[in-house]
Amino acid sequence: MSSASRGSGLTRRQWLHAMGRRSGGAGVYAAMSFLGLAEASTATPAFSLGEAPKGATVLVIGAGVAGLVSALELQRAGYQVQLLEYNDRPGGRSWTLRGGDRYTELGGATQHCQFDQGQYLNPGPWRLPYHHHGVLSYCKQLGVALEPFVQVNHNAYVHSTRSFGGQPQRWRKVQADFQGDVAELLAKVLQQRKLDEPLTEDDRERLLAALRNTGGLDNEMRYRGGFAASKRRGTEPAQDDGLHMVKDHEQPRSLQEMLDPEFWARMNESRDFEYQTPLFQPVGGMDAIPRALAKAVGPKIRYRARVTEISQDDHGVVARYEDLNRPGRMLTARAQWCVCTLPLSILSQLEIRVGDELRNAIQSVPYFAATKVGLQFKRRFWEEDEAIYGGISLTDLPIMQIGYPNYGFQGRKGVLLGAYTFGTNAYEFAAMSPAQRIRETVRLGTRIHKQYPAEFENGMAVAWHRSPFTLGCFGWWTEETRARHYPAMLKMDGRIILAGEHASLLTAWQEGAVLSARHAITQLHKKAVGA
Amino acid sequence: MSSASRGSGLTRRQWLHAMGRRSGGAGVYAAMSFLGLAEASTATPAFSLGEAPKGATVLVIGAGVAGLVSALELQRAGYQVQLLEYNDRPGGRSWTLRGGDRYTELGGATQHCQFDQGQYLNPGPWRLPYHHHGVLSYCKQLGVALEPFVQVNHNAYVHSTRSFGGQPQRWRKVQADFQGDVAELLAKVLQQRKLDEPLTEDDRERLLAALRNTGGLDNEMRYRGGFAASKRRGTEPAQDDGLHMVKDHEQPRSLQEMLDPEFWARMNESRDFEYQTPLFQPVGGMDAIPRALAKAVGPKIRYRARVTEISQDDHGVVARYEDLNRPGRMLTARAQWCVCTLPLSILSQLEIRVGDELRNAIQSVPYFAATKVGLQFKRRFWEEDEAIYGGISLTDLPIMQIGYPNYGFQGRKGVLLGAYTFGTNAYEFAAMSPAQRIRETVRLGTRIHKQYPAEFENGMAVAWHRSPFTLGCFGWWTEETRARHYPAMLKMDGRIILAGEHASLLTAWQEGAVLSARHAITQLHKKAVGA
Repeated sequence: MSSASRGSGLTRRQWLHAMGRRSGGAGVYAAMSFLGLAEASTATPAFSLGEAPKGATVLVIGAGVAGLVSALELQRAGYQVQLLEYNDRPGGRSWTLRGGDRYTELGGATQHCQFDQGQYLNPGPWRLPYHHHGVLSYCKQLGVALEPFVQVNHNAYVHSTRSFGGQPQRWRKVQADFQGDVAELLAKVLQQRKLDEPLTEDDRERLLAALRNTGGLDNEMRYRGGFAASKRRGTEPAQDDGLHMVKDHEQPRSLQEMLDPEFWARMNESRDFEYQTPLFQPVGGMDAIPRALAKAVGPKIRYRARVTEISQDDHGVVARYEDLNRPGRMLTARAQWCVCTLPLSILSQLEIRVGDELRNAIQSVPYFAATKVGLQFKRRFWEEDEAIYGGISLTDLPIMQIGYPNYGFQGRKGVLLGAYTFGTNAYEFAAMSPAQRIRETVRLGTRIHKQYPAEFENGMAVAWHRSPFTLGCFGWWTEETRARHYPAMLKMDGRIILAGEHASLLTAWQEGAVLSARHAITQLHKKAVGA
Repeated sequence: MSSASRGSGLTRRQWLHAMGRRSGGAGVYAAMSFLGLAEASTATPAFSLGEAPKGATVLVIGAGVAGLVSALELQRAGYQVQLLEYNDRPGGRSWTLRGGDRYTELGGATQHCQFDQGQYLNPGPWRLPYHHHGVLSYCKQLGVALEPFVQVNHNAYVHSTRSFGGQPQRWRKVQADFQGDVAELLAKVLQQRKLDEPLTEDDRERLLAALRNTGGLDNEMRYRGGFAASKRRGTEPAQDDGLHMVKDHEQPRSLQEMLDPEFWARMNESRDFEYQTPLFQPVGGMDAIPRALAKAVGPKIRYRARVTEISQDDHGVVARYEDLNRPGRMLTARAQWCVCTLPLSILSQLEIRVGDELRNAIQSVPYFAATKVGLQFKRRFWEEDEAIYGGISLTDLPIMQIGYPNYGFQGRKGVLLGAYTFGTNAYEFAAMSPAQRIRETVRLGTRIHKQYPAEFENGMAVAWHRSPFTLGCFGWWTEETRARHYPAMLKMDGRIILAGEHASLLTAWQEGAVLSARHAITQLHKKAVGA
């Protein structure tokens, strides 16, 4: 049985099994969000490995963030490092598509990116939480300029086909109306003294004051159309000269309308630690990070090297790889030690000489499905017509969200993230051709922005399960697989150790790759110096 | 009786009267926040005045945002415009201080700005709400690049000398703990069915689910130390390799601790429509806006012209002004019409020939007091040591807030907004010398950032009541003065019309200046064309 079919079969089966227990994209999303969180990164800018044994050599496989960080820190410690990379660029999933780029996915479909100069799409990671200290420290060391990433735009939309008659709603109104109603309900109970909490009279008064202020309640502690509520939910541009007080305040929505649970689960994501302001993005595209890392690593990166086999014995590690510049030509790389950062989806299909524990771990983690579609439009109608500058609109349509560019504000053109889909939605997108994905994204997005058909120019669609270098988006641990296989994933197996977001708790995040890389080379170094 | 002493006397008395009814900075702040809000700007990018009568001339006094917008749009319509400006630069309060700048305040104290290249302080406006369509439209027309302004930084501090033992608290924790407690209290009432709201059983369940998710409640609908709460309040960087689950979740604070009303009033400001994300700042400093406007207006701006008298008759308007390049030399400017954008604090001290209604209005608006102090530090310790990248910390100390620079992230040095004080606090700061203000800002700020004394390099302090070109920060309308005098402020008086933030509802905002300018020139144009 070839390792290829075995690996991919497992992945698929486990994935579908996991999917069966959940209900579509939002369920998966909530579960995903559940898995990797409440972990502040611990990396400090002061990471340092120590001194390498004289002449010690390391082979690093994969020049994504984990491989690049491993190589850089190993070199700094004095190791002789060689790095093999499948693509013709560093970064792996930390990737930016620009005009002139070409991308061929599994199955052979090739896209030619036609974005205008200065426009880009980050098909992989696109934001950096402020507490991802490891990634931020490399940005600082290597001079990667950062700018804020707008996560919550109060004027963006939340859209549910099942609520508000299917009409997109401004985020600020939905949020204010929910909070206003909650504040009013609790205030009423407090005023009626129905609460059996041990609140002093003074605390009760102070809580009422805080509720009034927070919720936007009026003098009678009611949340209703008026000055106080409008202060929280905002107003629409008036039609006069703007120099006179608003008289007709819109009435808030009823609480009943506000209770779509999918709605709330999605909006509340921005309250998660991982998405709390401020977030950042590298100026000009996410690949500024891997490119800066690769520059620091220097010439020891061999691109277009497809590793097919990794073996080891008591003396060292040998990797066989195909030189994709001369297809069919097999070469060999040797070193005393190896840090392997290949995604498990790829690694599970290779011959690799490791023990059963690690082998089982490698075979046990399916990969999460995601698709991103970038759309270039002739003008930034979301800014010009709708006053949405950056941030994200949420929808229960299969496109799931629309991300507005957080750069080039008020410029002439713009590239939207027209779809960022997960789970079953992503599988459906992956089953389409790139051109179909783009068409479908335009078709669905038109329900939120009617300007789409008139303003659309071109697009790029990356379905991660069709990416030849990852065959998926990121390691999709469950509580069960985490308990059974995660410890093995972190352990050195002879002379080989794994690294990558999949070997961390911060799956899907570049910070996971950094932490994992630092952990891996620390283990390797201990063994190399015989500590 | 000279108009000068009359004007300043009135301003002072009314101000102190207003102050007497309020309780310090936060009270003033809340009241201020109350006055100018719930007004989305109505200006659209498509503003156009029409065609000027042949040979029509307008004198615009003041080259702040209102004067510049007036001049630009009048020129576009074909008016011949002359602009007089007291300072040697455009912008007025829309101003940026950089290394090499010199500033002499009332009383003669002169500061020489020693900021490093690339560092700056906006002593006046520093942020642009996304719904200030007028200002944004000029940024777009004139190519002023914008970047996000971080308003809420979840990792910044809220600090009250009366709460939490006087220790600064991370914003994210205070916010999450309040919301978690409120969600838990309401959930309990719902579960006990004590609510006499007409909620269906289904809605009740859905509300409970939303409360649980929003508040970070656990399976038992309790807000307490654990995974769910940590997802909302965040965690501290752990001390291990970051690859293992957090086990010891911090316990939330008790609700009682969270009820400091001043605390809440201040934090909730960021929920106001005016401060909802996204906000923006011009790249490189706020004066990018007036400089772009002034460039578009062209050579018709005469700088260092101190207007002392404005008269009018049936044929035109005459302004007398001193050429400050040749002190004592009085010159005269004439035109058919006049847009006067001088702050009322200045205007109330000049001879101006207008009717009683407008004269009374001019004399009736005291000016709000504010002080900003910028501090340059040797390193960005707030980022390096405390992971605070941009945003604002709040404190009840007289400095009131600390603003972290929203540019140059992870750079070597940085200029903090060390104090942004209002009301009585601002008066106390204005009474000090600039050097004393800076010392006091460093002394007080050390209670929040202990690194201040070791890292401080230099500072700049602008107390707006000592600014010779405004004698205050912005027009401080009360409900009473607004009702009595605002209509007169908007009306053309013969051939003169006023413009500026003071002649708008969006006082203190550049958008108020834009709206007012557009309104003023529209009135003027109607009269000029005899409509």
